[in-house]
Amino acid sequence: MAGATETGEGRKKVIIDTDPGIDDAMAIFVALRSPELEVLGLTTTFGNVHTALATRNALHLLEAVGRTDIPVVEGSHVTVKFSIMNLQAVSFSVHGTQKATKLRIASFVHGSDGLGNQNFPAPASKPLDQSAAAFLVEQANLYPGQVTVVALGPLTNLALAVELDPSFPKKIGQIIILGGAYSVNGNVNPAAEANIFGDPDAADIVFTCGADILAVGLNVTHQVVLTDADREKLEQSDSKYARYLSKIMGIYFDYHKDAYFIKGVYLHDPTTLIAAVNPSLLTYTEGVVRVQTVGITRGLTVFDNTKKRYAEMTAWSGMPTVKVAVTVDAPAVVELMMQRLMTDD
Amino acid sequence: MAGATETGEGRKKVIIDTDPGIDDAMAIFVALRSPELEVLGLTTTFGNVHTALATRNALHLLEAVGRTDIPVVEGSHVTVKFSIMNLQAVSFSVHGTQKATKLRIASFVHGSDGLGNQNFPAPASKPLDQSAAAFLVEQANLYPGQVTVVALGPLTNLALAVELDPSFPKKIGQIIILGGAYSVNGNVNPAAEANIFGDPDAADIVFTCGADILAVGLNVTHQVVLTDADREKLEQSDSKYARYLSKIMGIYFDYHKDAYFIKGVYLHDPTTLIAAVNPSLLTYTEGVVRVQTVGITRGLTVFDNTKKRYAEMTAWSGMPTVKVAVTVDAPAVVELMMQRLMTDD
Repeated sequence: MAGATETGEGRKKVIIDTDPGIDDAMAIFVALRSPELEVLGLTTTFGNVHTALATRNALHLLEAVGRTDIPVVEGSHVTVKFSIMNLQAVSFSVHGTQKATKLRIASFVHGSDGLGNQNFPAPASKPLDQSAAAFLVEQANLYPGQVTVVALGPLTNLALAVELDPSFPKKIGQIIILGGAYSVNGNVNPAAEANIFGDPDAADIVFTCGADILAVGLNVTHQVVLTDADREKLEQSDSKYARYLSKIMGIYFDYHKDAYFIKGVYLHDPTTLIAAVNPSLLTYTEGVVRVQTVGITRGLTVFDNTKKRYAEMTAWSGMPTVKVAVTVDAPAVVELMMQRLMTDD
Repeated sequence: MAGATETGEGRKKVIIDTDPGIDDAMAIFVALRSPELEVLGLTTTFGNVHTALATRNALHLLEAVGRTDIPVVEGSHVTVKFSIMNLQAVSFSVHGTQKATKLRIASFVHGSDGLGNQNFPAPASKPLDQSAAAFLVEQANLYPGQVTVVALGPLTNLALAVELDPSFPKKIGQIIILGGAYSVNGNVNPAAEANIFGDPDAADIVFTCGADILAVGLNVTHQVVLTDADREKLEQSDSKYARYLSKIMGIYFDYHKDAYFIKGVYLHDPTTLIAAVNPSLLTYTEGVVRVQTVGITRGLTVFDNTKKRYAEMTAWSGMPTVKVAVTVDAPAVVELMMQRLMTDD
């Protein structure tokens, strides 16, 4: 007899917007292993890899653990500015000089295939014949107020969903964003975190769209470290999830040793996914986030949660507020992830 | 018999670059009352008031306490970009479209006269017939490595000194800057602190010029509050400094109550000046500061003191480091200020 959680009733419906990516793979596996969640689909974006490879990797990951029942939907190949330019080709063509920004792809973190350079076979399955933005709007309409989007890459698809359907921000349940660096330095450069830097215009659209948003930034994810000891435990586990991840994690550990001089890896994506599984593991404060889209601090998130009365109107004045995570129970996040990954279905 | 401190020997030579300003007046008076310092001159800038009024106020303040032996030197009336455009009028005129940015003047903080709307008489004394930038360069050449500039307003004059004499950064002893907001929100808007916002281009020139710089930002000065109780003590003092300040402080207290909902005022300028009097009252960390000069976070300071190895070159890579204050012994700063102001010469 199938219980409520097995049929999806009472589970939180989630769409994972993802650019797999080693820690994306961890997050996706935790989602699949969490009875609290019902994964409606994976939408793909660029970031750790280009979008086409993100789609291939999403399909591959679901095949690797026998979950091809979950649809994969391919997202934008380019930033929101260029994507909207294409949609509005006639009106934009008069300007003539606009060009797509070169995408920043973090192959040095995840390997050139995004999954630790393992030469995995091409997946047999295919993505849906639909855009990620259209899928996001469709699911929000199908389950108004009930869908949580866990956004693990640049926010292009979500920005396009907002452009596609202005009522999307009110129909979507919650958007949990891995993005930004609040009162701390970035990881692409001292100002910017990688996901926001990947498409700052999209991020500013999403942060100010009025949806129920929880942002999880580097100030939080840099507290959540999978240590070498944890890695050994994963390597000793017989679960298919742990065995898969153990194969691909090496390059991610190497990167952290080289870039941060730490023995361990930051659990950016799993922490953000776990904010959907067990929200009580994080605390947050509320205010307005705006994103700088030009100049040397392009991709910087500035969060205003002061009560200061500024003398002049600012870019933050009167904008919708979002939640920004400030504390995390890091040991509990690591433990929950390990527990989910070290057991099979 | 004049002792060493009275003749200036052994004292730290300081130039105060200032836009008086109520807390500028406090800082200037503390400087005059500090045997550790020899004030070589006051250079003026815009910010709390326009530069012409800053000059008038600087002369007036020195007259009010009988210290007309100290020269006042008028600084730039416009931001560094426009100032340099004027110097290079021929080359710039071909572009034709550049205009001076409207200066931001904080009359709502200090009164329209900058000194609490007291209708003080015009000063009888005059500024030197020299630019502030030229004076800064001259003094740095006269006393190489020995002059400390305490910069209490936008950094235009210092940027012009760097442009005027590329060896200025190495000849000046130290530049102590009240400017920036490090890991905290600004006070002009959520991104920017007022002095940096006043001339972001100048600030970026100064922060990257290679001089020995200590930046004191809002993260530090918002810890140093002169309370209502302190104000009462000042009002009961018979010293000419306390009596003068008691007359002008009301509007500054009103502003803080209205904008920050606090009973008390932030001691931005005195704290920065006291960093020259007793450096041991602050601690600092070292790294690179860059200033965003365009967009919604114009005037934002981004400080990189991480040891992270970024994958790409950034705007911070290889730039000269500066010191940024991180802690302050706030009670000791307030006590030192009160003690200096509540006694006469």
